Amino acid sequence: MQSTIDPLKERYKKNKETYIQEFLEFLHFASISSEKEFKSDLNNCKDWLSNQLKQAGLEVEEWQTTGHPTLFAHHCHAGKEKPTVLIYCHYDVQPVDPIELWNSPPFEPEIRDGEIYARGSSDDKGQCFYVVKALQDMLLEKGSLPVNVKLLIEGEEEIGSTGLAAIIPERKASLQADYLVVVDLSIPSLEQPAVTLGTRGIVAMTVNLRGSSEDLHSGQLGGIVYNPLHALVEILASLRNSDGSIAIEGFYDGVTELPETEKSLLSFDFDPEEFKQMFGAKASGGETSYPPAERASLRPTLEINGIKGGYGGDGFKTVIPAEAIAKISCRLVAGQDPERIGQLVKKAIEAKAPEGIDVSVTLMAGSGKAANTKPSCVAAKAFAEAYEKVFQHPCQFLVQGGSIPITAELAAAAEAESVMIGVGLPDDGIHAPNEHFGVDRIEMGYLLICNGLSLLGK
Amino acid sequence: MQSTIDPLKERYKKNKETYIQEFLEFLHFASISSEKEFKSDLNNCKDWLSNQLKQAGLEVEEWQTTGHPTLFAHHCHAGKEKPTVLIYCHYDVQPVDPIELWNSPPFEPEIRDGEIYARGSSDDKGQCFYVVKALQDMLLEKGSLPVNVKLLIEGEEEIGSTGLAAIIPERKASLQADYLVVVDLSIPSLEQPAVTLGTRGIVAMTVNLRGSSEDLHSGQLGGIVYNPLHALVEILASLRNSDGSIAIEGFYDGVTELPETEKSLLSFDFDPEEFKQMFGAKASGGETSYPPAERASLRPTLEINGIKGGYGGDGFKTVIPAEAIAKISCRLVAGQDPERIGQLVKKAIEAKAPEGIDVSVTLMAGSGKAANTKPSCVAAKAFAEAYEKVFQHPCQFLVQGGSIPITAELAAAAEAESVMIGVGLPDDGIHAPNEHFGVDRIEMGYLLICNGLSLLGK
Repeated sequence: MQSTIDPLKERYKKNKETYIQEFLEFLHFASISSEKEFKSDLNNCKDWLSNQLKQAGLEVEEWQTTGHPTLFAHHCHAGKEKPTVLIYCHYDVQPVDPIELWNSPPFEPEIRDGEIYARGSSDDKGQCFYVVKALQDMLLEKGSLPVNVKLLIEGEEEIGSTGLAAIIPERKASLQADYLVVVDLSIPSLEQPAVTLGTRGIVAMTVNLRGSSEDLHSGQLGGIVYNPLHALVEILASLRNSDGSIAIEGFYDGVTELPETEKSLLSFDFDPEEFKQMFGAKASGGETSYPPAERASLRPTLEINGIKGGYGGDGFKTVIPAEAIAKISCRLVAGQDPERIGQLVKKAIEAKAPEGIDVSVTLMAGSGKAANTKPSCVAAKAFAEAYEKVFQHPCQFLVQGGSIPITAELAAAAEAESVMIGVGLPDDGIHAPNEHFGVDRIEMGYLLICNGLSLLGK
Repeated sequence: MQSTIDPLKERYKKNKETYIQEFLEFLHFASISSEKEFKSDLNNCKDWLSNQLKQAGLEVEEWQTTGHPTLFAHHCHAGKEKPTVLIYCHYDVQPVDPIELWNSPPFEPEIRDGEIYARGSSDDKGQCFYVVKALQDMLLEKGSLPVNVKLLIEGEEEIGSTGLAAIIPERKASLQADYLVVVDLSIPSLEQPAVTLGTRGIVAMTVNLRGSSEDLHSGQLGGIVYNPLHALVEILASLRNSDGSIAIEGFYDGVTELPETEKSLLSFDFDPEEFKQMFGAKASGGETSYPPAERASLRPTLEINGIKGGYGGDGFKTVIPAEAIAKISCRLVAGQDPERIGQLVKKAIEAKAPEGIDVSVTLMAGSGKAANTKPSCVAAKAFAEAYEKVFQHPCQFLVQGGSIPITAELAAAAEAESVMIGVGLPDDGIHAPNEHFGVDRIEMGYLLICNGLSLLGK
């Protein structure tokens, strides 16, 4: 018996070269949402994508937000007895710094050894692209889709989905669905496909310290003024205990351990040697009383994402900087409210300001709760089966450490169960220089979507 | 009786406008010694200065070094019975970052309210310029100088005088002098002229930390890897005790308190209110068991001059950086050897590397011992008298907190007693944005040199 997917497989092979060319076009847009100067690039990217969706045969709406617009496309003609699936992706990308470490320009995609190098190639343009192509080809092949499909592609995921979050209440009716399928995830390896049932929440903040009205000379005034960089290292060092746990009162309040029955359905593979090979890093961080894989998904964290202050160039400059900045973010788990944790950290840091140093912490927009779905969810099972068909390997259920803050909010508004899928890999270099995505993974993702939706429509 | 200086005063007034125009020319050269791209600007600056020295009537030699050349000019025709004075200045300047805080471009000097705004206007081109004009006009007025003069103007003071330091041994004969007069200093105020008898030594280093081969995603791997920024803040915070003293074993070994008899001849004025007014900073740093003015001159320090790691831009980027850098410098006092202290700090920092983080400390070229001269030195007394004549206020003896590492080495090679003078002011903004120097201070410095050399030649 011929599978319903085989003709789509053929169709992909026939159109592969055209699709790759289109994908490279998509990657050319410098759709960096965090920096104002890229506003028109984001806009052009959105227009290109909107056109693709229309060509695919979807009805397209452009939802204005306070920031970059969201595209909402839909094709809900499968009938009332079929489930409605809300698919989520994003067209914005991370900044490119440190630009000097890229081997080819981030927005001039290059294919080397079967990998496409460009910012956004994996996160999330690659995944967004195969979703569109899968829907297009299913419609071309059959004239219909196996389920009712709603597709939401936003332009501010990398800066916390603020604009989209604000319009969710007024768009609640449009968003109604049975399942929310977030296509923005990675799997442990091509031999270990996985449906992600949970992600951590996040809250991020900027710490500003000021000691004087201008930069001072460390010879003239060293020994008199309190150097803001000294204050900063003292404050930040005090936020962690020697066992890697966070030394902020109340930080772990409400955090509960997952029941063993549920934990046993989740996969926690972790090989320190493979990890070292891949990232050149030892698994020596975080709360040493938990195994590494649990530390990276089921436990909350506080990380310093950046420090900037004084002179960092060649040679030396004997300056006492007037100010210093640190960027901090916390990953959150079930039971932790982002606003509450943000305020706790803010208060803890501000309370440690030494005499003579002004310390202020600003919470950033874009926080979000952790997301959690039971392994019994129908969509989780359907995509697990789809993964096994495409990858020919058993599919796992995972809880991942990253955050897609909008997931929990979208799922609540849509009154849907959420699952998270994708064909990203841990060494794709997302958020880092030389981000890349395998040419063959466009096809894998395409087939994953075709299979998953077909199974859900049975 | 007419003072021998009065005709020079007249001569300055007559030529003032020409001199200011020449000074502005001098300030146009972007002679930043720490950055390679300014090599030709330094060279052009040196040529311009060499020409000025020749026009002034001095014989000029250009001494090649491993870095930017040193100018050595001399006029030793006062006779053997007259002392030989070796004057030291420098033509290189500090970098200009943060450039966005300058109100006018750093190398397009602007005069506003009697102050000349430009990088190097105070440190040290302004001081260098009046020395040249004083020697020129004394020669024009009398055809001779009251003492034998050697003038050394180097191009690497701001990066530690490495090149000059290396050639000192082979130039020992040329450098022989009775007194070394370093013209690179500031005085507390125009009402408080001062001869500086001592400066602190310095040793600087760069701390490099590496945790992984590339930047990592704080969601994916936060909780597994040891963030190098966490390691950095923990290490740096551990270097200081809560009383502001340096927590490195052996750091204070050999540091002796100045005898009270000598201390009593030194001036230690410090007004915390005035300080706050001037710098927008509280006097809350350093070793709290010593009074502020002593902390800033007679006590050693360890300051973080810069930290750079991860994301420091707008918004947030959830990265765990692969590496982090800190710049550290220690100010040293009598009894502390720069190399020994550098090694102590390096070892202390490297020993604190947590598992999974590579930590390495590189000592920078340009270290130097503290300089110390007794208040009984003849040149100290002559310039004190010169200051009192020019400023019409009692002159103090000071020990300053800054470092001119080359001073101790030059004084030893020249077999000379060293004194340090100048008409810089604490709020000139040296090493900071909007550096400036009063137009009237060119004349004050000019008269200080004329008077000081005349008194030494009596």
